[in-house]
Amino acid sequence: MSEFSRVGIIVKQPALDHEEPLSTLTAFLQERGLGILLDESASEYAQQNGLEFTNREELASSVDLVVVVGGDGTLLNAARSLAVVDVAVVGINLGRLGFLVDVSPEEIQQQLEPILAGDYIEERRMLLSASVFRDNEKIGQYCALNDVTLHVRDVVRMIEFETHINGHFVNIQRADGMVVSTPTGSTAYALSSGGPILHPNLDAITLVPICPHTLSHRPLVVSGENQIEIRVCDHSRNSGQVAFDGQYNIDLLDQDRIVIDKHDHCLRLIHPPSYDYYHILRAKLRWSEQP
Amino acid sequence: MSEFSRVGIIVKQPALDHEEPLSTLTAFLQERGLGILLDESASEYAQQNGLEFTNREELASSVDLVVVVGGDGTLLNAARSLAVVDVAVVGINLGRLGFLVDVSPEEIQQQLEPILAGDYIEERRMLLSASVFRDNEKIGQYCALNDVTLHVRDVVRMIEFETHINGHFVNIQRADGMVVSTPTGSTAYALSSGGPILHPNLDAITLVPICPHTLSHRPLVVSGENQIEIRVCDHSRNSGQVAFDGQYNIDLLDQDRIVIDKHDHCLRLIHPPSYDYYHILRAKLRWSEQP
Amino acid sequence: MSEFSRVGIIVKQPALDHEEPLSTLTAFLQERGLGILLDESASEYAQQNGLEFTNREELASSVDLVVVVGGDGTLLNAARSLAVVDVAVVGINLGRLGFLVDVSPEEIQQQLEPILAGDYIEERRMLLSASVFRDNEKIGQYCALNDVTLHVRDVVRMIEFETHINGHFVNIQRADGMVVSTPTGSTAYALSSGGPILHPNLDAITLVPICPHTLSHRPLVVSGENQIEIRVCDHSRNSGQVAFDGQYNIDLLDQDRIVIDKHDHCLRLIHPPSYDYYHILRAKLRWSEQP
Amino acid sequence: MSEFSRVGIIVKQPALDHEEPLSTLTAFLQERGLGILLDESASEYAQQNGLEFTNREELASSVDLVVVVGGDGTLLNAARSLAVVDVAVVGINLGRLGFLVDVSPEEIQQQLEPILAGDYIEERRMLLSASVFRDNEKIGQYCALNDVTLHVRDVVRMIEFETHINGHFVNIQRADGMVVSTPTGSTAYALSSGGPILHPNLDAITLVPICPHTLSHRPLVVSGENQIEIRVCDHSRNSGQVAFDGQYNIDLLDQDRIVIDKHDHCLRLIHPPSYDYYHILRAKLRWSEQP
Repeated sequence: MSEFSRVGIIVKQPALDHEEPLSTLTAFLQERGLGILLDESASEYAQQNGLEFTNREELASSVDLVVVVGGDGTLLNAARSLAVVDVAVVGINLGRLGFLVDVSPEEIQQQLEPILAGDYIEERRMLLSASVFRDNEKIGQYCALNDVTLHVRDVVRMIEFETHINGHFVNIQRADGMVVSTPTGSTAYALSSGGPILHPNLDAITLVPICPHTLSHRPLVVSGENQIEIRVCDHSRNSGQVAFDGQYNIDLLDQDRIVIDKHDHCLRLIHPPSYDYYHILRAKLRWSEQP
Repeated sequence: MSEFSRVGIIVKQPALDHEEPLSTLTAFLQERGLGILLDESASEYAQQNGLEFTNREELASSVDLVVVVGGDGTLLNAARSLAVVDVAVVGINLGRLGFLVDVSPEEIQQQLEPILAGDYIEERRMLLSASVFRDNEKIGQYCALNDVTLHVRDVVRMIEFETHINGHFVNIQRADGMVVSTPTGSTAYALSSGGPILHPNLDAITLVPICPHTLSHRPLVVSGENQIEIRVCDHSRNSGQVAFDGQYNIDLLDQDRIVIDKHDHCLRLIHPPSYDYYHILRAKLRWSEQP
Repeated sequence: MSEFSRVGIIVKQPALDHEEPLSTLTAFLQERGLGILLDESASEYAQQNGLEFTNREELASSVDLVVVVGGDGTLLNAARSLAVVDVAVVGINLGRLGFLVDVSPEEIQQQLEPILAGDYIEERRMLLSASVFRDNEKIGQYCALNDVTLHVRDVVRMIEFETHINGHFVNIQRADGMVVSTPTGSTAYALSSGGPILHPNLDAITLVPICPHTLSHRPLVVSGENQIEIRVCDHSRNSGQVAFDGQYNIDLLDQDRIVIDKHDHCLRLIHPPSYDYYHILRAKLRWSEQP
Repeated sequence: MSEFSRVGIIVKQPALDHEEPLSTLTAFLQERGLGILLDESASEYAQQNGLEFTNREELASSVDLVVVVGGDGTLLNAARSLAVVDVAVVGINLGRLGFLVDVSPEEIQQQLEPILAGDYIEERRMLLSASVFRDNEKIGQYCALNDVTLHVRDVVRMIEFETHINGHFVNIQRADGMVVSTPTGSTAYALSSGGPILHPNLDAITLVPICPHTLSHRPLVVSGENQIEIRVCDHSRNSGQVAFDGQYNIDLLDQDRIVIDKHDHCLRLIHPPSYDYYHILRAKLRWSEQP
């Protein structure tokens, strides 16, 4: 008996390179009498194996559990469509240990068994929603599970930008950019830029400058309820860019504004009962490891 | 008409050195018909000026507003008794601009007037409650507005300690110590140790190692709901100490445990309506100031 | 009597925007009977004022003092041609206080008078010489006064590279890049990336990773006698670039190698007798300034 | 045939705990017909085994090679007496891999054989010489292989101090202290305090503040030829201390001055021919290790 009846599968491209974990997974789910629906990016694999497939949005709204087979990048990419329908998501890790995908392919049965039986740890991971404004017109809206990053397009030139939080002026910085990160993203690019580690269940956003051109900077952590606005104010060069989870970019012009809020939906991330965030921190980052 | 009827006054020692702001303050309060009660540390000044005085606990529970005249250290010291009775607190700043005390002595009338009329910004600042255990017996309990800091007694020797959060093992560190800080404390010793700035209204605690003996460390920020336990595990030297707001110290023995939780009470910190946290950050820390 | 008989002038573009300091300077030099030769980038100004001009290389080898009128960027750009002929260089600062250009335009006479009389401080600033190799063929050779910087072309993708020093393997890093900096460059991009400040007369090179994807990094400082080799080893993406003083870029392919040595020549940088490096550090960086 | 005829042995206390490596070592040396002289701290072991012993100074000047059996701390402690007589020193590592002691006890024969035959790498490690002045009177002079560290005696109080280099004012800092470190010490306490790694053959000194009370600090690296002077300037509290290699401390009073120069002598540190500094960095610090 499972609390999930139909399971969606999203797999890292190209899907045919990952036949072995896919076969193990689908066999396991079929034995338990669960419906299976593949993402259309795996259509060839689906057709070869007599399985149904559909597009990402359709998939997200037709199943009650999504298994992502890939790395953190695959889950990051899927997260944006999956969060809005509040579907549960679990990751099978094809690469090295991931922060988000934590079921190892050798233990698919062992680790999915309790999850299907309802014995799992569920985290609600915050996402960010970012709107880009040009001349007071919204030119785009995007969401991100890790981070919204303003950065220079040409890395040897600094960008100058102004930050406001809830309408309060914070500061003007000249830097290579700034990472605005969720707790999930705090172990990704924000960490490389010198930011702190935020526990995933903290309702907070961190602002971490990238290579700032001043000695007196420090990462800032604010509550998730804040609205963050960044204005590109470099008057001479329109060389900024904004990236969402490092996967999608928009070129900016002078005076463009990025307005960032907590997204209305969270990602429902499912882990095996043995999940331990601090263990993953130690294993992935060799955090505080003694020489 | 004021929403406060009786005002307590706590002043930096020695009180007689601060007669001018005290006179301005008491005259201002008396003109408005408010009762005044001084802390007994200012008993000499009180007697000379025909004012009532009493001990700190009595004062805290007898008034509905406390004015602290001094620096951040004076307010820090008072905070521990004032928080437990939920009394409103405002600070008049005798020294350089403070993070906590933000009414300048030249503007006592101008800035207290709106506060007495109910036009103010109130922040609820989290405190920490820390218990020290030896052989499973609690040997003391303390609270702190800024931080609970484990550190070596003899600074040229490292201390080794183990951290657990909500019963989960986090790591073992060898360092000069660790700062466990509230958002209020994040601009104090935690900042000197390399920690991030946490906005005061964030419900969070940050753990910042002091001069850690490993390259792979990074500050950690967790929700205020977590229980943090630190165990001194250096088996050869009993040279640890724990400090509360840097004002009170306890010597530790090997195997002693410090258990830290969010305190049941917050400090009700009152600011003039013009209060702007980011302005204070910029002014005090020259934060992100361009050279 | 001056130890310099002919003075070259290089001015920030467009030269006609800086007529006032140029007129003051040329009048001052003419009064003292010194020959003047302008850089051809100021040809229009030269023609309007009946002054000689020539190209950069010709200028460098025809004079015994070069006055650079502009900011640090102008001097940086000129340094590469001036160093090879061992000509003395002094900077008049059109912008904010510079690290390299330190004569203020208001004090041209006052500060150049002693310099012309032989009363000055001369620093010999190290330059780097970098060769780029592709398939064991040298595809270019460049020099830099500040830094040779490997960086990603598309900032949201890391680059992977291997460093060797004097033939010894140092490490493999995944990062946004790495700054290889002279002491002069240690207060420029290397500082933004987290590097230490190296005093200009130290014979040393510092290697500072940019946003490294590991917690256990730290800047490295080695003697100027070392040869540093960086190999782009990211096998999947050829997205690296190398920048010289942030002013000139070369796109890299996988397996390209950058070999960096101390340049054979130094820049002879001349300062007024009142020059004080630590004063400039404090003034420019607000270094260790108390809040 | 060896270029060394008499070998001194200094062993970590208590010597009788290390009989096995001592026996292996002395047997090995005796087989090769070399004279052996033990440090008097191992007098009991020497007497039991019919070996000569003498005091540290006598030993240092009577032999042409000293073998230190212990950890980095043992060698650090011995270095100060050994440097002044220019005797060659090699370390057998009883603990974890050391930065200074790099012959493993299992390979005593294998690694000492080539060394005795003249096939070794010799490094000349800089030491610091520090004098402490009170009221213009020198109250002590000390030397250090790693670092001279000014620090607070009571760790919860900052100390205020002024730094001058070659008579030039550098800055005033309020901090827990400052580490003045040789390249050898750059991987010890200076590293914990956030300093860069200096290659051992660099003629340089680094100044690293400990938990500074300002955001705008950064480690400084200057040539070994500089004289560094630190003046305790905290007028209210005489709570400073200065430590030499973290092994010897002197209490300071207000206005005391510490004057630090490169020592006249270097430590002649001998390594097996396979010695590779960058390998030790990676192994000891997990430096730049990929997660």
